[in-house]
Amino acid sequence: MIDYTAFISAAHDVLGPRGFTCDADLIDPWLTDWRGRYTGKAIGMASPQSTEQVSQLVRLCAQHGVNIVPQGGNSGMSGGATPDASGTAIILSLRQLNDISPIDPNARQVTCGAGVILQSLHTEAEQHDLRFPLTLGGKGSATIGGLISTNAGGTQVLRHGTMREQVAGIEAVMADGQIYNSLTPLKKDNRGFDLKQLLIGSEGTLGIVTAATLFLSPRIGGRTVLWVGLPKVQNARDLLIMCKDMCGDGLEGFEILPDHCLSAVLDYLPSARNPLSDRHRWYALIEIVAGTDNAEALNDLAESVLAKALESSLIEDGTYSANETQAEAFWLLRDSISPAERAIGPAMQHDISVPVSRMADFIADTVPRVENAFPGTAALAFGHLGDGNVHYHVLAPKGAIGGVWEEEEGKQISIFVHDCVTEWNGSISAEHGIGQMKRDELGRLGDPAALSILRSVKNALDPQGLLNPGKLIPAEPT
Amino acid sequence: MIDYTAFISAAHDVLGPRGFTCDADLIDPWLTDWRGRYTGKAIGMASPQSTEQVSQLVRLCAQHGVNIVPQGGNSGMSGGATPDASGTAIILSLRQLNDISPIDPNARQVTCGAGVILQSLHTEAEQHDLRFPLTLGGKGSATIGGLISTNAGGTQVLRHGTMREQVAGIEAVMADGQIYNSLTPLKKDNRGFDLKQLLIGSEGTLGIVTAATLFLSPRIGGRTVLWVGLPKVQNARDLLIMCKDMCGDGLEGFEILPDHCLSAVLDYLPSARNPLSDRHRWYALIEIVAGTDNAEALNDLAESVLAKALESSLIEDGTYSANETQAEAFWLLRDSISPAERAIGPAMQHDISVPVSRMADFIADTVPRVENAFPGTAALAFGHLGDGNVHYHVLAPKGAIGGVWEEEEGKQISIFVHDCVTEWNGSISAEHGIGQMKRDELGRLGDPAALSILRSVKNALDPQGLLNPGKLIPAEPT
Repeated sequence: MIDYTAFISAAHDVLGPRGFTCDADLIDPWLTDWRGRYTGKAIGMASPQSTEQVSQLVRLCAQHGVNIVPQGGNSGMSGGATPDASGTAIILSLRQLNDISPIDPNARQVTCGAGVILQSLHTEAEQHDLRFPLTLGGKGSATIGGLISTNAGGTQVLRHGTMREQVAGIEAVMADGQIYNSLTPLKKDNRGFDLKQLLIGSEGTLGIVTAATLFLSPRIGGRTVLWVGLPKVQNARDLLIMCKDMCGDGLEGFEILPDHCLSAVLDYLPSARNPLSDRHRWYALIEIVAGTDNAEALNDLAESVLAKALESSLIEDGTYSANETQAEAFWLLRDSISPAERAIGPAMQHDISVPVSRMADFIADTVPRVENAFPGTAALAFGHLGDGNVHYHVLAPKGAIGGVWEEEEGKQISIFVHDCVTEWNGSISAEHGIGQMKRDELGRLGDPAALSILRSVKNALDPQGLLNPGKLIPAEPT
Repeated sequence: MIDYTAFISAAHDVLGPRGFTCDADLIDPWLTDWRGRYTGKAIGMASPQSTEQVSQLVRLCAQHGVNIVPQGGNSGMSGGATPDASGTAIILSLRQLNDISPIDPNARQVTCGAGVILQSLHTEAEQHDLRFPLTLGGKGSATIGGLISTNAGGTQVLRHGTMREQVAGIEAVMADGQIYNSLTPLKKDNRGFDLKQLLIGSEGTLGIVTAATLFLSPRIGGRTVLWVGLPKVQNARDLLIMCKDMCGDGLEGFEILPDHCLSAVLDYLPSARNPLSDRHRWYALIEIVAGTDNAEALNDLAESVLAKALESSLIEDGTYSANETQAEAFWLLRDSISPAERAIGPAMQHDISVPVSRMADFIADTVPRVENAFPGTAALAFGHLGDGNVHYHVLAPKGAIGGVWEEEEGKQISIFVHDCVTEWNGSISAEHGIGQMKRDELGRLGDPAALSILRSVKNALDPQGLLNPGKLIPAEPT
């Protein structure tokens, strides 16, 4: 039996009265994930001020057998930072670890506490004429620790990679309270397998990230955004290859959407305009950047891309942003798809990937299969074609009632979509992680060898199973 | 007790008489590492023809409790592929797994068996107007499996990263014989922590890499190589930053050497010439590449770099290659340092890294300390300054006798150098791995938290300890 009273008293001793609270008013906002899908209970909430305090607290939890749910900005997409309903865990908030070390512009690196908010890092980097390239919708709340623990993606992955590629070094507290520190980053270090790679994407199940050293990129000089209409999704693949050849490293983004998504956005945003004079079956948004602010050269490149794409019949029409306002307007169309679809009615959302070269074919193959299997639904795939990652939404038939439909037909739809993805050698989680939402599906569909390695490493590094229980690692088969 | 007779008979059943041999004539060449430092014994040598055969053999070893030493080209630098003297292991040669799948030029990827030789991959990529950028001295024998298992480096890391960054997906046989397969590579996949990262750099202690999918780069259009003389090593750091700013992604290599190394090479290679009219205390070799064959633009860039470096007094003199023959001649000076030094007499060699920004200061600080502590020696640091990685050789005093000196003063020197590196937050193995050579030093100097994670993961994935015993993972403290 766990002596919670003794644990709470000891936690107060370690963290002080403000560093550990059992006050329901303070804890409640953090017991539900931001999308409102999961709600749990907690013994209390710890808010340590230093890595040393995290270490002491984790030792205490190990002594008492208390579960730990690490939490950053609570803006995850898969319920990975929400405790379960048993009330046997504490929430460990990393939000107080929000120091940003002075930036060394020559090394192009910065060291951040796990609680630093992404937007703050963007601002800090800009002040040194540098850039932290990873960005995503939740940048105003997402923390560096959470981004690392979920290996977050976003819209700039095509050129800059996921969070994994931004990480030079990590500091983390392991399940026994030991502090692992690789914050002094070495470009080359072959003292065995790379331990920081284990922590990236482990969703707090192997250790608790407390700080990281991150790479910074040179500032962007200028950008232009192209908006083109395509007759069929398969053309997007060839267009992507053409853009890579013509733009090289300057190609920052390549997103696609079907006409249904554009319709929904134009209905949802009264001020929005279709960038082209006609409608097309598919659209691609293509961002090209340059290191120097040479608008003319960028415009010339955009013109060449459009001319060649039209000439080779890959696109039916296209335009490019005349200025930054128009570039923002094109991106707004893309970024408004999710809320616009939500306004139409209930939908099942899937964050999936297949090999980049196969994504267009995957969409063309599976959309009619899903719609045939579930009459009245509409399957819409949009997003990061350049990464082989789309958000695959299936809209409920007209008149379906949200919660009920999701629990019944919706669940069957997700199983169907995940089966299709698995058949195409894809991933049921491209960038949102597993959390509690997809844990059973990972157990059902994951490669047995991979699941066995996941479980073995988890048991080795967290033998008591106290770190973020019920997340990511599928239960052992019975 | 292990029944070796039964094991050998079963291995013959699985692999056929040619796939498993106990013939000393066939095995002997593989019992000694190529540098002649380590020699071991083996029960036999297995040469499976397929991943399935590797899996069956590993299951057999697990049943019988037989140790396995995986081996590729046997060109490792740290004795990681040489069995110990106990004669309780088999050598598992991966050299027969040498298929290269057809290259998809659009996906810029290729799938290779673990036994494919690096040079063969270079040739294959070139035939598709592509390039596999990683290269090193042993390219004629080093295999893809060995390069992955040691996370090899080489001369192009500055721009392209180590082997880790070239790997899109891996196939490996785990200690229980299960086959882990991520050869269908996904650009984004967040189904838990990335298992392939565990295998990269694990030197065959966690699993046996049998195949990999690798990224390919666009072909290089042209290159130019600069050779400059510097008054002091600290200038090399500022020169590196200047080159990065001026050349961006075109900066492919940045190597340094002291005048002592140039002297040795000029003595060793009768046909070699000093590229500059005078001698300087330090030299840097800088390679700049371009995607298109625009020699004029490259020459202009080289001129600008030299002009700015002279103007800011970073260099005393400099030149750049007028053609490919001269570029090769400059590289030959760099590549001949090791054999030239070896011709002078015995030396202790160290492959070390510190943060890139601190390498020049590290050299300036430690070279006199080493030479003072061991009178008569000469400490020489040369190599990949752009990666924060140098080869740090300490030459024996005149008249020292090879083997004896290495065992006595030499060992003390290595301890001294490794202590300096640790003091500067560096790594005692930047690119050569740990193998059997540095295992005790890793145990002595490694961070206790990191060592504890290494051991836990090893025990979890190879509970019988059969995979490459005595390599990489330091023994438990007594």
